[in-house]
Amino acid sequence: MMHKENITKKEALDLIRSAWTPASVTEEVAVADAMGRILAEDCHAKYDLPVVRAAGMDGICVNFDLFENGMPDTSEWQRGVQYDRADTGDDFPDAFDTVLPIEWVKTEDGTIRIEPQKMHGPGGRPDGAPQIERGMNVRPAGSMMKKDALLAKKGMRITAFDIAALATGGYGTVKVIKKPRIAFLPTGSELIPAGSIPQRGQNFDANSLMVSAMLREMGAEVTCFPIEADHKNNLKERLAEALKKNDIVLINGGSSKGEEDFNTRILQEMGEFLFHWIKAAPGRPMSAAVIQGKLVINLAGPTIGAYYGVIWCVKELLADWYGCEVPWGHEIEAELTEDLMAPPMSIFMRMRVTDEKEESEKARYFASRIGGGPGRTHPGINQPDANAIYMTEPDQPAPKKGDVIRVIMVR
Amino acid sequence: MMHKENITKKEALDLIRSAWTPASVTEEVAVADAMGRILAEDCHAKYDLPVVRAAGMDGICVNFDLFENGMPDTSEWQRGVQYDRADTGDDFPDAFDTVLPIEWVKTEDGTIRIEPQKMHGPGGRPDGAPQIERGMNVRPAGSMMKKDALLAKKGMRITAFDIAALATGGYGTVKVIKKPRIAFLPTGSELIPAGSIPQRGQNFDANSLMVSAMLREMGAEVTCFPIEADHKNNLKERLAEALKKNDIVLINGGSSKGEEDFNTRILQEMGEFLFHWIKAAPGRPMSAAVIQGKLVINLAGPTIGAYYGVIWCVKELLADWYGCEVPWGHEIEAELTEDLMAPPMSIFMRMRVTDEKEESEKARYFASRIGGGPGRTHPGINQPDANAIYMTEPDQPAPKKGDVIRVIMVR
Repeated sequence: MMHKENITKKEALDLIRSAWTPASVTEEVAVADAMGRILAEDCHAKYDLPVVRAAGMDGICVNFDLFENGMPDTSEWQRGVQYDRADTGDDFPDAFDTVLPIEWVKTEDGTIRIEPQKMHGPGGRPDGAPQIERGMNVRPAGSMMKKDALLAKKGMRITAFDIAALATGGYGTVKVIKKPRIAFLPTGSELIPAGSIPQRGQNFDANSLMVSAMLREMGAEVTCFPIEADHKNNLKERLAEALKKNDIVLINGGSSKGEEDFNTRILQEMGEFLFHWIKAAPGRPMSAAVIQGKLVINLAGPTIGAYYGVIWCVKELLADWYGCEVPWGHEIEAELTEDLMAPPMSIFMRMRVTDEKEESEKARYFASRIGGGPGRTHPGINQPDANAIYMTEPDQPAPKKGDVIRVIMVR
Repeated sequence: MMHKENITKKEALDLIRSAWTPASVTEEVAVADAMGRILAEDCHAKYDLPVVRAAGMDGICVNFDLFENGMPDTSEWQRGVQYDRADTGDDFPDAFDTVLPIEWVKTEDGTIRIEPQKMHGPGGRPDGAPQIERGMNVRPAGSMMKKDALLAKKGMRITAFDIAALATGGYGTVKVIKKPRIAFLPTGSELIPAGSIPQRGQNFDANSLMVSAMLREMGAEVTCFPIEADHKNNLKERLAEALKKNDIVLINGGSSKGEEDFNTRILQEMGEFLFHWIKAAPGRPMSAAVIQGKLVINLAGPTIGAYYGVIWCVKELLADWYGCEVPWGHEIEAELTEDLMAPPMSIFMRMRVTDEKEESEKARYFASRIGGGPGRTHPGINQPDANAIYMTEPDQPAPKKGDVIRVIMVR
């Protein structure tokens, strides 16, 4: 099959999806370790809680029979016989059926006196006649958690509160979708590891660190390979090694027309080559293939290009894997402070979003592009003031100053 | 000093802040491990990149002198003598000063021909006269990263892109604020670990798992202690142990008026007792003390109370520690679908936020309370449909149906 060239992001994702299906499987993890994982089963409470019943207040438990004809004489009452202590959440002996608030109980010389009263302040209840009734302040079995109640749904991303609900519902472990294993292969004879001293012609491998951090945040298990120089056979061997234990392999660099740009050529030789060149910049020289049933993506070498490729492509494939959106940044609406261009491809822009300007009727926030713009070049990697990203889409009119656009907050 | 009772959340935080100062220190971590950490120094680029210069396109490098009087005869040109390959980002020999796009170069029988042309499509540039100029397509030293350029600012939460900027700026490690060490002590004779089979009177310790997950997400290093039964001396020993190696200790449960509610009494005995009872529900029976210079908070036992306490109190103290906001959920504006009550204390509510209703002029989202409400009881822990939280504040008018409120999205 012929591969496609110079296609849109959507066309590229469609091609990948038609050639590769995520092989997502499930695994059992401790509820304590389930934070952020995607639940692979509906979970229902296994038990009633309280198992039998529980006091609904701090107080004493009594048998209402003794109160049926009014306040009994308690001068001879003994703890464990006519009454016992029962505090909020506590079970108490079957001989008792009613809980009286501890605020009603006066203790003197080992005997107790019960004085029903209005309750105020800490631990109090709203005003009202302090009528003693059978079963008052007793929570029945299942009042805290009803057996079979739905705790959390299949496909949910587990939050801290869901962990509490699952634990309270009797779960020690839950079934979740296994994380996809993604290998990242930084390639380029010019690359040196972060923290080295650069010589003429050398450049830092920043992408390994950045992409690993992004993918881990997006829910992948990442293996980062060492830097591989531009030697075709070594690159092929390294790719073969990465394919063995991973679901997706990202090869970074060597994706364009340079003499030593071997990676896209390797993808063509080793598997079903899907596409080369994307109508999305930075990062246009990007390609993909399916090799031995695994997906291999050749991301552009420049850092911003690799960043963009992870966002528009790999993040969407992780969403396919998990069957739900991957939370990464959050979208907000902001009013544009300048005209943007509308080139025939999707342009990735870093933005500064503030709420510092005067009130607007359109949006609470204002967005300005950092660097770039018509006639301007792309800004450098270091943009400490950028806090959001925006992507133009091909064949859409150019957004104008005053338009409300949706940006993704990244800071 | 007398402790305070029945105070607002703000009063409680003020009391804590006047009695306890976060002892935040810094540490050096690998840039690769710096994701989400708070930078403790401004970082500036250590080197110019490229170190000398680099090709700005895939192409050949030449000496412009040969082109000064028009296109030279290239029939005898040899690679390494009159020209060489120079691809995007590559350094090239000092004999050359200009890079011509590879698309202009035709190779035939080992000789090259140069044909300047308009460039289209992949790898192309906008239309224009293909005039050859000295230094064209050459990126000077520092054009990618200028020595001393600001990479990231002190107090910033490091993102994946910042990691790339730091690595590209020459950093292998960075100085960040050390995570606060927080101990969590679950207490209660009725508690059993998640996954056990509950007997009459028993309840699951869900809070250890939930609070640990929340605090780790908020940037703390959490040590979770085993469940401790309600024996006063053991509780004191456990607290003393936790104080040794932690900055903050959270004791959970035993904070109210029950007979076995020892924890607040222990706080009173062991240190400077700050307050008991908060005008915030669920979770009103909460107290705090400073013991041996460490902050000890006694969180209410019921799960929703502990959850609320972590959000309004511990999260704010983590922000103090780091000197910046702790990202946890994100706020959005939503239109209320019902009247809410306005009790004299801060009420924590779980909400369902949707965008499924008809267009509103006020907000994009709609918020409805899950359970609760006037005359209704608090909902159970398991509320898989709740995706946001809302907190009423004391002495504020009751929010009405149609009002736009700010809620925190948690799902």
